[in-house]
Amino acid sequence: MAADNREFNHLWDLSREIANLRSVNMLLQWDQETHMPPNGAKARAGQLELIAQLIHQRRTGKDFEKALAAVIDLDTGKLRVEGCSAAQKAAVREWRRDFSLATQLPIDFVRRWSNLTSEAAEVWRNARERSSFLTFAPYLERIVALCQEKAELLGYKAHPYDPLVDEYEPDMTYAQLTKLFGDLRKPLVALRNKLLTRKQPDCSFLQQRYGSAKQMTFAKHLLGHVGWTQENGAVDLTTHPFCLSLHPTDGRVTTRVNERDPLENFLASLHEGGHYLYEVNLSEKTWGSPLSEPVSMAVHESQSRWWETIVGQSHPFWKHAFPELKALFPKQLEGVGLSRFVKAVNALRLTPIRIETDEVSYCLHVILRFEIESALVDGSLKVRDLPTVWNEKMKELLGIEPENDARGCLQDIHWAWGHVGYFPTYALGNLYAAQFFDTFAKAHPDWEERIGKGEFEFMRDWLQHNIHQHGRRYRPGELMQHVTGKQPSPDCYLKYLTLKYS
Amino acid sequence: MAADNREFNHLWDLSREIANLRSVNMLLQWDQETHMPPNGAKARAGQLELIAQLIHQRRTGKDFEKALAAVIDLDTGKLRVEGCSAAQKAAVREWRRDFSLATQLPIDFVRRWSNLTSEAAEVWRNARERSSFLTFAPYLERIVALCQEKAELLGYKAHPYDPLVDEYEPDMTYAQLTKLFGDLRKPLVALRNKLLTRKQPDCSFLQQRYGSAKQMTFAKHLLGHVGWTQENGAVDLTTHPFCLSLHPTDGRVTTRVNERDPLENFLASLHEGGHYLYEVNLSEKTWGSPLSEPVSMAVHESQSRWWETIVGQSHPFWKHAFPELKALFPKQLEGVGLSRFVKAVNALRLTPIRIETDEVSYCLHVILRFEIESALVDGSLKVRDLPTVWNEKMKELLGIEPENDARGCLQDIHWAWGHVGYFPTYALGNLYAAQFFDTFAKAHPDWEERIGKGEFEFMRDWLQHNIHQHGRRYRPGELMQHVTGKQPSPDCYLKYLTLKYS
Repeated sequence: MAADNREFNHLWDLSREIANLRSVNMLLQWDQETHMPPNGAKARAGQLELIAQLIHQRRTGKDFEKALAAVIDLDTGKLRVEGCSAAQKAAVREWRRDFSLATQLPIDFVRRWSNLTSEAAEVWRNARERSSFLTFAPYLERIVALCQEKAELLGYKAHPYDPLVDEYEPDMTYAQLTKLFGDLRKPLVALRNKLLTRKQPDCSFLQQRYGSAKQMTFAKHLLGHVGWTQENGAVDLTTHPFCLSLHPTDGRVTTRVNERDPLENFLASLHEGGHYLYEVNLSEKTWGSPLSEPVSMAVHESQSRWWETIVGQSHPFWKHAFPELKALFPKQLEGVGLSRFVKAVNALRLTPIRIETDEVSYCLHVILRFEIESALVDGSLKVRDLPTVWNEKMKELLGIEPENDARGCLQDIHWAWGHVGYFPTYALGNLYAAQFFDTFAKAHPDWEERIGKGEFEFMRDWLQHNIHQHGRRYRPGELMQHVTGKQPSPDCYLKYLTLKYS
Repeated sequence: MAADNREFNHLWDLSREIANLRSVNMLLQWDQETHMPPNGAKARAGQLELIAQLIHQRRTGKDFEKALAAVIDLDTGKLRVEGCSAAQKAAVREWRRDFSLATQLPIDFVRRWSNLTSEAAEVWRNARERSSFLTFAPYLERIVALCQEKAELLGYKAHPYDPLVDEYEPDMTYAQLTKLFGDLRKPLVALRNKLLTRKQPDCSFLQQRYGSAKQMTFAKHLLGHVGWTQENGAVDLTTHPFCLSLHPTDGRVTTRVNERDPLENFLASLHEGGHYLYEVNLSEKTWGSPLSEPVSMAVHESQSRWWETIVGQSHPFWKHAFPELKALFPKQLEGVGLSRFVKAVNALRLTPIRIETDEVSYCLHVILRFEIESALVDGSLKVRDLPTVWNEKMKELLGIEPENDARGCLQDIHWAWGHVGYFPTYALGNLYAAQFFDTFAKAHPDWEERIGKGEFEFMRDWLQHNIHQHGRRYRPGELMQHVTGKQPSPDCYLKYLTLKYS
């Protein structure tokens, strides 16, 4: 971005202040999950609330509105200043989107939303523990009603689900998702059923004790392949792994360790490493503007799934990494060959739990949630019927019946948080990853050989050059078109899975 | 505090918001020294600057002024509302003090101060590394000039040093310090010289390898005695140990490990533990008001020195702790008895470096700095003469000549930070600790026996009841009077040292 435009730079200054507050918010959240003493939780809530309030004030305040209106017509989106570069135009477009989203919800609504969802999260924890859907149901009813109200406030043309998903995945719609997931549904179920008729790989060697210190040593190796460095990153242990970033120079990965299942650690580390790489590859130069922000949740997820599944569950990857792992755990892996190990990594996991499942089943778990939450929002499904419908769909899509609601419709916290419209991005992430990878593999037909030799830099460079460096310069659909020459489709993903599991 | 006063509570709400921002500031600082990746430093500076600015705006803003003026006459200090409890009156008094201190310095001055000191800290690091006083001198000259300007802005009656020290130690003056340190100087030098003629204890057993993991295990035991808990505290490793607190429920201790000198770790842990105990014992109920803030730097230091020296270098303490230490390091401590160990802990340390010195020499290092910095401020000493005067005084007070300025007048960062008036609180901390302890020992004449048995709770309770729980309810001098029945004096300290080393 050129710095010759006074109005533009003033807007950027205000935006940079918001970005700094968001970094602070990230640190508060990271610390809460890693190093904060347990009794600090109540005070932390107060700190988080204050910072959230300061961010909201700045995003919706008169200062920001005035600065934005000096650059762009808020109603029509027509630029008011001349000589903006294409990048600057994109930044202004995204600033306008953020301002519009932040101001369309009145403060009274925001408060009701925040009160209900924090209460609901507590109720959900309790309800899940006792597997009592009836405890959570009245809260879910109120959340659905608030989501419907939110959809009305944000406005939509075709379906009330549209503005909800758009918040996480710009421009994505109910109609598009219905088409994408519709095309995915049948072939995935068919592939999965076919695989289930085969002999399942022997994973018994994984069910031994793998010491946590050595797992973490190996996790750092894996993270190093993805691009994690001590200079730009921290790594800590948590129950629910995540990645947060304060700045392209300061990304925080967390992972988990289960001494009885080392794959949990390796795959979680690769997954969060993928998120990390996206964040640290965002542009330092444009920091504080949308050009240095991740473009969407699905593209973010595509980066984590790229490393966790397409690369991290591939034969070439373990060709390089397995000897190292074997050196760390010679006893546990005695007599286990590379092929047997890779088969175990890719074994189907027959579980009703989304986050424990395998690559082939994953999107089916997501499609189930999409079908249910969109029906709740448009009123075609009532909350009271949720458990029944959940279990029916689970049977239909995955052939599994959850033992109880705790392991069924109560397993995810998302709805309690009000995150309706978020789930599809998990499946889209897989689709996008495969579509990006298809383009990557055409540019680098020797990728398997190089990864097998432990070369990773060319892959990281490709991701940075084609995806990360752009930030929000392109909308997600534009980015897909720009990089892959196609709009999002399930083709590459299905091709990838079919080829891999044939 | 009763909650029946609307004006009072409004003021408290504003103050609580400032306190929350200060907690955030603490977390940013703690993280910077513990887990932040190195490359995150530049972005961190921006985050810290923003939070500092938000704090300053709130402390000096119209909202706060109006709320404060509704409760108290800003000029005369006369209360405007009725029915305030004594505690509330004290809180209002301290709010007025803070507001007055924050508003007496114009924003232009604050900016110049902040720019100069951050630059000077960098220059100082460089100058110390090359032991080049001439590099640092021009910056120190500008810092002295700014301190003089600050003294004029804050106003004073007797000596320009008064308002500078008052910032860290309310009501303390140049005249009082001259008297206190004057009374301390001669007897301390005499005691130290006498001790130097004796045979020095054999500390050779300390000069072996003491593994850092085991040192940290032991450090956690020590911290436990002082009152540290996992529920209310974190502990991490740093080069320069410190303790920061976000809230009485969330204190962060850091300590250091030198595998070739385990005492560094043990004494630093006890020292920071003492600071921690003060912070976590502050009142949760009055949090966000001055009643839940530490009263002064010297009282804070008295709490760290209490545990590090009076308790932590005492025979009874090690009677309890030494067997545990010996169990962890049986080889290194083979044949070392309790008495020999305690003697080694209390050995004189002939070093020109303040932070490496022993209990007897410590205050002399501080007196030297006080005499120099007060003379710089009143103009009777020129910066260019500093190295000569430093070395002369070092010779006079400690009989030591530093090898170079890096280990002489360039050893501390305080002046580069503009912390002129801070050093005296280190010596006052020792005086206060001894004076508090004298009162404590009268109330608990069996303390040696109980500590020897590993009972610590009665000691922590005494500190909480007599000192910690009050926060800033009393001014430091009032607190001393209240607890010990006397104004600060060197008597107890000299008595304590003489008795211990006779």
